[in-house]
Amino acid sequence: MTAAAPLALVCGAGQFPLAVADAVTASGRPIYLIGVRGAADPAISKYPHDWIGMGRLGRMLRLARDAGAKDIAFVGAVPRPSMSLDFIPDLRFLKLMLRYLGGGDNDMLTHFAREVESKGLRVRGVHEVAPGLILPSGVIGKHVPSAEAQAAALLGMEVLGALGPYDIGQGAVVADRRVIAIEAAEGTDAMLERVADLRSSGRLKTAAGKSVFVKASKRGQDLRLDTPAIGTATVEKVKQAGLAGIAVAAGQVMTPDLGALIDAADKAGLFIFGVEPSA
Amino acid sequence: MTAAAPLALVCGAGQFPLAVADAVTASGRPIYLIGVRGAADPAISKYPHDWIGMGRLGRMLRLARDAGAKDIAFVGAVPRPSMSLDFIPDLRFLKLMLRYLGGGDNDMLTHFAREVESKGLRVRGVHEVAPGLILPSGVIGKHVPSAEAQAAALLGMEVLGALGPYDIGQGAVVADRRVIAIEAAEGTDAMLERVADLRSSGRLKTAAGKSVFVKASKRGQDLRLDTPAIGTATVEKVKQAGLAGIAVAAGQVMTPDLGALIDAADKAGLFIFGVEPSA
Repeated sequence: MTAAAPLALVCGAGQFPLAVADAVTASGRPIYLIGVRGAADPAISKYPHDWIGMGRLGRMLRLARDAGAKDIAFVGAVPRPSMSLDFIPDLRFLKLMLRYLGGGDNDMLTHFAREVESKGLRVRGVHEVAPGLILPSGVIGKHVPSAEAQAAALLGMEVLGALGPYDIGQGAVVADRRVIAIEAAEGTDAMLERVADLRSSGRLKTAAGKSVFVKASKRGQDLRLDTPAIGTATVEKVKQAGLAGIAVAAGQVMTPDLGALIDAADKAGLFIFGVEPSA
Repeated sequence: MTAAAPLALVCGAGQFPLAVADAVTASGRPIYLIGVRGAADPAISKYPHDWIGMGRLGRMLRLARDAGAKDIAFVGAVPRPSMSLDFIPDLRFLKLMLRYLGGGDNDMLTHFAREVESKGLRVRGVHEVAPGLILPSGVIGKHVPSAEAQAAALLGMEVLGALGPYDIGQGAVVADRRVIAIEAAEGTDAMLERVADLRSSGRLKTAAGKSVFVKASKRGQDLRLDTPAIGTATVEKVKQAGLAGIAVAAGQVMTPDLGALIDAADKAGLFIFGVEPSA
């Protein structure tokens, strides 16, 4: 009875794990949650669940298998562990750490996925277990990007593509035909706030309708473990930055509530546009 | 008597135009300065000079030719013109504007250089007229970058090289093997302040000695018109960001006073390192 095997969902911080759990449940598939202590929302307790400490990789794998799961998914950020009383890694985690030490985020995630799969669980991405939360291609919502905004979006995708080999951020802002911000370690919000500052200080002047926030995954292969996400708060930041809309790599970016996202963008006068990512 | 023909130096803001004028004069070559009103330091008046308003391209070319110049150089930032009473562009400038409208910074500068050269003046870069102000390759100063810092510097150069086709910023910060910041429209100082913030908020933790600020020109071909620059203030910002040193693309980055820069870096405990830019 493979159909009845639950999906094991390891839950980090934020609203995304519960959104995925709801979507998976609505699709008729049973779910079993593993909350990372100190990160996951206590509200995950509305589903069958257990808690693990950060770095307890062995226990996580055991719990998932004991729940009968064949598939496992990871949603929500987990802070990088720091040495403290809350962080008691197990032997499996320490071995993994030693193997990936020195690599970037992607390397770490790739090693992590390989380790999990070597124990007989298939790692699944949000696009596979809850495709309804993934932004599609084309115009999403009622506002249509201008030809200039579409060109800006394509340029942004190309730049993010060029950065692919370097494991850098998932976002950029293109105003008219100029790339004015690239996201690295500071994160999307800080980048959008920087653009808002540039605009309010008069250092950025572009015609409305020609500027866009572009969001994509860093590389195809880690989409399962690091799905980029936007939400209504992103819409608010994009509006404050004076941009015309949001372009996402179609099939790569998730949102916890597509209806709410579209409503917010429609009301803010912003377009949301899914473009095929450049190869 | 070609040797006696003065170099015409168009002066924008900052200390760089005078540093170049001093260096050119010290090399025995006569100089004639053209200050951009509202941008250039009034202290340029210590040399033979005239003033022009922004956008007075025809007058600029006439002045340079009347002074007997065959070569012209442009140093120091000039603010993008905004429509105001101070900005009365001439016909030549307006024609040029119409031709480059829509392009990025590099396109604009390329068109500008072509227009100037079509009027019989050769556009020269700082590396040609004042090579002593350009940072060379190898270890500059008394601190030597660790092998890890050198690897980080090379990674940064590679990333800046990958961004070359997109006319994006000249700087990046690499900590250990992660690119944590890329400069676009916000400028070098804002990027370094961002890294300082990431560090003070605990979001960036790297071993000392492995992180580096990398500076290069955007593309080889506009080096004549947009020479990246660092100075003692950069050293201060790099120190505040908790980085181990500065890596520059050898032969591409200028400093107004190499001795002062080395002193500041030596005292701050930072390395300065010139690396061959990636092709």
